[in-house]
Parts: sequence; C-alpha cells; structure tokens
Amino acid sequence: MELREARLDGQTLYRGKIVNVRVDSVALPDGRTATREVVEHPGGVAVVAVTDAGEVFTVRQYRYPFGEVTREIPAGKLEPGEDPLACALRELREETGYVCGRMEPLGVIYASPGVYTEKLHLYLALDLTFVGQKLDDGEFLHVESTPLQELVSQAASNEIKDAKTIIGIMLAQGRIGRPQREGGRGGA
Amino acid sequence: MELREARLDGQTLYRGKIVNVRVDSVALPDGRTATREVVEHPGGVAVVAVTDAGEVFTVRQYRYPFGEVTREIPAGKLEPGEDPLACALRELREETGYVCGRMEPLGVIYASPGVYTEKLHLYLALDLTFVGQKLDDGEFLHVESTPLQELVSQAASNEIKDAKTIIGIMLAQGRIGRPQREGGRGGA
Repeated sequence: MELREARLDGQTLYRGKIVNVRVDSVALPDGRTATREVVEHPGGVAVVAVTDAGEVFTVRQYRYPFGEVTREIPAGKLEPGEDPLACALRELREETGYVCGRMEPLGVIYASPGVYTEKLHLYLALDLTFVGQKLDDGEFLHVESTPLQELVSQAASNEIKDAKTIIGIMLAQGRIGRPQREGGRGGA
Repeated sequence: MELREARLDGQTLYRGKIVNVRVDSVALPDGRTATREVVEHPGGVAVVAVTDAGEVFTVRQYRYPFGEVTREIPAGKLEPGEDPLACALRELREETGYVCGRMEPLGVIYASPGVYTEKLHLYLALDLTFVGQKLDDGEFLHVESTPLQELVSQAASNEIKDAKTIIGIMLAQGRIGRPQREGGRGGA
C-alpha cells in the first residue's frame, strides 16, 4: 500500500517570530482529500558537552509554555541558512561559555513529526575550554555540570523530561559511556 | 537568580484543528518585558507494546510535515478531557488491533519545551491479545513487529528518528530488557 500524501493546495495562516502555521489540502493514498496542519519550525541543535572529568553541562531555564523550570542540554534554533555544526558551536559557547576541540554528530531527531517540522541535530562536544558565557538578550539560565552516569540514571527514571536531553544523554552514553568508566578515554 | 517569567497579557492569533498559537507578553526576571510565542498542543500518548516473544510493534506512516515515511511506536493525541491511560488503550487498539492485559506508565516527555506545549505520556503494554485494527478515517499505516533488542540498536544508531520512539524503546529496554552489556555493568 502506498502511504504518500500529495499536496494539492495550501496557505500560511500564521506567521510568527519562531513558527509559521500552514494548512494544506492533500490527496490521501485512497484518492480522497484531507487537510494537514503543519507547524513550521526552523530546526535546531542540542549539545552533550562532556568535560575531561566525565561531567555533562545542563542548563536550568524557565520554559514558559509549561510554566516550569526544566533541565536541558544546551540547545538553540538554527538561524536562516546556518550550518548545524556552526549553530552547535555557537550555542555551546553562548550558553555555557565553553568552546570545544571536538564536536561529533550524534544523530538527528524529529521532535513531534505529526504536525511539527522541528528537526534537531544532536552533537557530542569534547575537549572543552572555558572562554566565557554570552547569553542572548532576555535569556536567563543556570548552568550546572553532572556526571554522565548520574544523568543517564535521571533520564531512565524520568526525572529529566525534555526529549532531546534524554536522547542526547543516552546516545552520548552509548558512544563514550564505557571507556569513561574505565578511567579515561583511551589514548585521548 | 529567579528564572520565572510572569504573563502580563496575550492573545490567541491562530486557532486550528490540532494546535493553537498564542502570543503573550511577559515580565522577565530582570523586570523587562518580552513576547513569548506558544504553540498549544493537546498532548498525547505513545505505547511500547511488547509481545510475549519480545517483539515491539511499530507503525510506518507518511508524515506530511517531513514528506517521508517514518517508523514510530503507536501514538495519538488526547481527546478533550481524556485520561492518558484510556487514550493509550484506544490508540494501541486502533493502530495495531491489540488489547493488553497490562499498561504500565513509563514516564512523561516534553517534545519541544521552548515553544510547544506537547506533553507525551509513554506506556509499556504487555499481555497482548489481537482483536482487530480500527484506524481513524483517513489514517493509513503499516504495522510491523521487531525484536526489542533490534529496535534498541536502531535507536542507538539513529536509524529511528522519532523522539518518542527512541525514548520509549530505551525506557522499555531499561524496564524489561536484559542488561545490554553483560559483564560490563554486572558486579561493578
């Protein structure tokens, strides 16, 4: 069975600062038509930055949509035309004040593929050097560092609720978790 | 430092079938004002349904916002006033055709907390019995089953990109899977 839905028509009904909302009419696989609501988001990056001591930076920040303070890995939206790697370096620097010697891709995730186009590029940052935080205007957050293993437990027990943070931590653990417990990243 | 942002004013600028968009003006921790764009989503559920043979159901469906077919665990939006557990039982039945003897909560995740209010309740469904699929009108999908360990590998290698699916599989693995690295974690 074919699953594809073909766009017939559509219009943007909301243009905002971060998102736009588009409503399209589509042809379904059985030939009937339906409408599809699409929330367009520019996409972004999130960074698992691990210190030589095996600690990972998280930020506490107030998330207005939930009315609560969450704990998340450093992250941010792509500027128009920005390369995800450049964005990851920028966000790491801005939010934590660190630059890194290595920034390795961990993968790409879809936050909520039913209606939301947000695609997040996850990175692992290593060989960190502190050069000074520079937050965006109107951005308020607390930076903390926590041993990777402790964050893995907090993700597994659902103490951490942010999707990109749970996935970033688990992917970083899969990538570097084992060598680190052996007391060094072998050769590094 | 206080992180909270207090709502001063706001209005809904888009009312849609699935989401609404609200723009509020808020007082920042330093007393200045800013605007916050909020995409209101009703929230939903996602279900890791594991057969007695240790296989997990996933669905292939066309995700119009990405123009591609994704592989995801069964999931759906909450109806107004619907209990997440009832929604999980309903979505599992509708999409896969299975009912379950046990439906255990795995946790709650925030898909994209910067602007999007979507909160997803994850469940682990066990003791499955086939009674017959009943899809929503206009819903087209393929159901498959895959050994849990294989899905864990596919999540770790980023072959699966849907956030709730990656997290659901990893949490289910922590709950019911065998230790992945025997000897590594053992008596350590």
